[in-house]
Amino acid sequence: MNEEMLKGIKFDEKGLVPVVVQDVDTHVVLMLAYMNREALDKTLETGQMCYYSRSRQCLWVKGETSGNTQRMVTLSYDCDGDTLLARVKQKGVACHTGNYSCFFNHIAQEDAPATSGILEELYGVI
Amino acid sequence: MNEEMLKGIKFDEKGLVPVVVQDVDTHVVLMLAYMNREALDKTLETGQMCYYSRSRQCLWVKGETSGNTQRMVTLSYDCDGDTLLARVKQKGVACHTGNYSCFFNHIAQEDAPATSGILEELYGVI
Repeated sequence: MNEEMLKGIKFDEKGLVPVVVQDVDTHVVLMLAYMNREALDKTLETGQMCYYSRSRQCLWVKGETSGNTQRMVTLSYDCDGDTLLARVKQKGVACHTGNYSCFFNHIAQEDAPATSGILEELYGVI
Repeated sequence: MNEEMLKGIKFDEKGLVPVVVQDVDTHVVLMLAYMNREALDKTLETGQMCYYSRSRQCLWVKGETSGNTQRMVTLSYDCDGDTLLARVKQKGVACHTGNYSCFFNHIAQEDAPATSGILEELYGVI
């Protein structure tokens, strides 16, 4: 952990920073969650993703009750320091609905070339 | 465009919703941006990603000045309707710094197995 680097992270007026969570193996975007400084410290200390639940207003170790934990593999922040990206080893599914990814509601889809999505399909198979 | 589906999207108290932007070909997470309802409508109408700039407080068609446009391929929203995921065809780089992805500041990295990242490397080559 690099304290100097952590200074580059800008928490918002509520003390939170959004975290994009991506499966390091399948590359699927699983969810967007939020961290406060305490959740970030705990994640870095334990290697297990810990978020701040905005609805319950408390720390939330992902998978603590469901068993669907996320092990941190890489953690980065963006050019203006107001978003994190975590690439994780997802155990089971990420979404509380039982879906693998939280992003299962599709609004629009362009006519994509036939090759698009093949990689996810392959990952689903292996 | 499905008006019924769009009702499932929850804009926050500022009228914004965060959008995770992922390259549909390389699967790299490029950036997190924000949309208001107008930006969402414009994106769905034109197929080109349009965001709301929180700093400039105006609509912002991605790549309008730089040429680094993003064509929408799929657009989804998450289980609780407060985040969008856009998978896009990225022209050039996504970040204003000249980096391909905005997430180039690395905080932490677990000792990853040797296979991790190979896919991105392959995509970088082809």
